[in-house]
Amino acid sequence: MRELTVDLGERSYPIYIGEGLLEEASVYFAKHGISKKSPLMIITDEQVAGRHLAALEKSLKDGGFSVVSEVVEAGESSKSLAMLGMLVGKALEAGLDRNSAIVALGGGVVGDLAGFVAASYMRGVKFVQVPTTILAHDSSVGGKVAVNHPLAKNIIGAFHQPELVLYDLRTLQTLPPREVSAGLSEVVKHGLIWDADFVDWCETNAEKLLALDPDSIGHALYKGSSVKAAVVSQDERENDLRAILNLGHTIGHALEAVAGYGELLHGEAISIGMIGSAKLGLRYGAPEDVYTTTKRVLSACGLPVRLPEHYDVDSIMDAMMHDKKFKEGTMVFVVPTAIGKVDIVKDVPVAWVREIVEQLKQEAELQ
Amino acid sequence: MRELTVDLGERSYPIYIGEGLLEEASVYFAKHGISKKSPLMIITDEQVAGRHLAALEKSLKDGGFSVVSEVVEAGESSKSLAMLGMLVGKALEAGLDRNSAIVALGGGVVGDLAGFVAASYMRGVKFVQVPTTILAHDSSVGGKVAVNHPLAKNIIGAFHQPELVLYDLRTLQTLPPREVSAGLSEVVKHGLIWDADFVDWCETNAEKLLALDPDSIGHALYKGSSVKAAVVSQDERENDLRAILNLGHTIGHALEAVAGYGELLHGEAISIGMIGSAKLGLRYGAPEDVYTTTKRVLSACGLPVRLPEHYDVDSIMDAMMHDKKFKEGTMVFVVPTAIGKVDIVKDVPVAWVREIVEQLKQEAELQ
Repeated sequence: MRELTVDLGERSYPIYIGEGLLEEASVYFAKHGISKKSPLMIITDEQVAGRHLAALEKSLKDGGFSVVSEVVEAGESSKSLAMLGMLVGKALEAGLDRNSAIVALGGGVVGDLAGFVAASYMRGVKFVQVPTTILAHDSSVGGKVAVNHPLAKNIIGAFHQPELVLYDLRTLQTLPPREVSAGLSEVVKHGLIWDADFVDWCETNAEKLLALDPDSIGHALYKGSSVKAAVVSQDERENDLRAILNLGHTIGHALEAVAGYGELLHGEAISIGMIGSAKLGLRYGAPEDVYTTTKRVLSACGLPVRLPEHYDVDSIMDAMMHDKKFKEGTMVFVVPTAIGKVDIVKDVPVAWVREIVEQLKQEAELQ
Repeated sequence: MRELTVDLGERSYPIYIGEGLLEEASVYFAKHGISKKSPLMIITDEQVAGRHLAALEKSLKDGGFSVVSEVVEAGESSKSLAMLGMLVGKALEAGLDRNSAIVALGGGVVGDLAGFVAASYMRGVKFVQVPTTILAHDSSVGGKVAVNHPLAKNIIGAFHQPELVLYDLRTLQTLPPREVSAGLSEVVKHGLIWDADFVDWCETNAEKLLALDPDSIGHALYKGSSVKAAVVSQDERENDLRAILNLGHTIGHALEAVAGYGELLHGEAISIGMIGSAKLGLRYGAPEDVYTTTKRVLSACGLPVRLPEHYDVDSIMDAMMHDKKFKEGTMVFVVPTAIGKVDIVKDVPVAWVREIVEQLKQEAELQ
């Protein structure tokens, strides 16, 4: 069992990473002040419910908690104000009060949605994250919760820190291989912005990670979460430093925006975006290995490093222009200066970005 | 011009109370860090827009601010998730970014709604309150913002403190007399829980207050806001002390719930509720003047002190049972122990409350 603390003063909280934690959930919930007198609500999605909901419910009920569960459709469309209203109605009917907790059982979508229910129900109740994806090691640290608006993703939300994060590695065993790779994308990102040794470790241990070897994946989640926690601790409200977490995300978000439904997973889009960022780093004088190492480690994790030919560069650039980071002929980018180090560059010429997006199509896939 | 500070550490903010502040709004906005580079959005309602929106817009535009305005229907029905979604859409279309501010121009409904837009748009942007009712002296201090759910009022919200509150006394001049009285109800409440001298002053100056004499009303708002600010400073997240602000509200909310639409204003319901609390105080041994003084000062402010005959006691009790403060045959009540002093009593017998509600119908109105 690994444990780390996200250090946010009086809002600090622990992340537990280990095997079989679902079965021991009631112990951890009780230890961190979740009330047994007030009902708690588990929010999960259809896919996760079938695999893990019964185990979590059983553990909590056996431990004396009063539990209600709500299962939403899997996918981004559940992150809506309408769903927030529906869940608040269910919480009221179930008698959740100010001492109740909302529990997110699932990946990033469920975490964002349930987190915003917790942030806004009765102006804020306790929140627990029980992530079931690798990607959620990222979203479950930092307290960013939100729902979507038809015009923009994650635009209605809050910063609401959980009381604890309970990461049961066994829940990862049922992830499809493509989602394992996609999840590793943010793990690698945390190395690329902060910790060169960890990047090296990821490359060396990529096969074990892809095979979901518990000790390796536990270490990867621990290190990835630690970097995220360190950054968030220094910048809880996303004023400056926290922007470095967006490495690869400016191009990546644009790719997601123009891709057909299900064509690119978030982690895949970010992987291609990080290759673009590395190439931008070279333009700003970073050593060659910023690019070669980035490409090797992402390839080793089974991630795409090349933009498929059919993507239209104009559409991608248009999508980026709508990104809030754009301003008068230049863009803000997270640019690597070495492996494990990045800068925020506020005046990257749009023309350079365009050239790099075009080059991403020519990128050779590594074996 | 009167000024006071709500002391909340790094979230502290000033309240300015004076005549003609709308015309000087740009000076105060600039002084408190509202950005001229990013557009700001004024949210107001149809009634207030006709009277005061042009003046505020002109002042801000003349001062170099980029301003968009959204006018919602007056009344509680605008405090909905649907309206939140609509306003977020408008904010996106107008290009509001993370440095933008949301400005509430109006009473409590507009403040609650605009405040929750500010709290949740891009996970929180700056917020400015420009209250136009007496009652808003209460709601504009403390940062409680929310929208309603069909099953419960104010159930989806946040604590989001404004950057400043700008109280232009001239906006009060167009209030109908009944709303003036209703607004004074919360002013008097702040005296009753905290400051006996101020209760005395309210009674002595009631005629001037009802006539909206600027100096008197300015003083009343200053003192009322000061009490609220003192309480909130000690208990920002409503953990304990802040409960004393609910004097008269348990009965009051129940009266509002059973009253026909428009029959009882909030301040009127609270006034009758405070008479009930005073009578409860006598049961717990408070001196007789807790009751007589409460009744005199509320009557002097033109407020009802008697429950109209046609109200059904059973319905009122049912409404109270649904209140979250109820628990197993007893209720939590804010009970006066002297003028300017209250206790929280957690085990008031429901039977006592029922008797008092029945007695409220027999209450003689004072002249």
